[in-house]
Amino acid sequence: MSTVTVTVAGMSCGHCVSSVREEVGSIPGVTAVNVDLANGEVTIDSDLHVESDAIKTAVEEAGYQLAG
Amino acid sequence: MSTVTVTVAGMSCGHCVSSVREEVGSIPGVTAVNVDLANGEVTIDSDLHVESDAIKTAVEEAGYQLAG
Repeated sequence: MSTVTVTVAGMSCGHCVSSVREEVGSIPGVTAVNVDLANGEVTIDSDLHVESDAIKTAVEEAGYQLAG
Repeated sequence: MSTVTVTVAGMSCGHCVSSVREEVGSIPGVTAVNVDLANGEVTIDSDLHVESDAIKTAVEEAGYQLAG
């Protein structure tokens, strides 16, 4: 089990949070996704290694971008 | 056919717009709902008289409030 945290830009409301949670949560191995809307931090627990590209792709599919 | 415009507070993104459009669009007689996210204006076309209470209720069911 591992945990990674990324920062996502552009989330403005609970609907945005739900979209990101849904897309990131569908990555194989991901067991939990927690989103802090105030600072854009998305914390991802997984029981398989998750490629950072997979996270980037999921965030973009939700309609947002990784920050920084 | 009549048109009424109300202002809705708290919409921050396209998901919010979709929620309001869906709820207001389900009021009997409503034929079109246009939302301007930038200023919160919601323009409602209808072919029946629409009670202002029905609009208020629909906006609240979407999770928002009429402004002012």
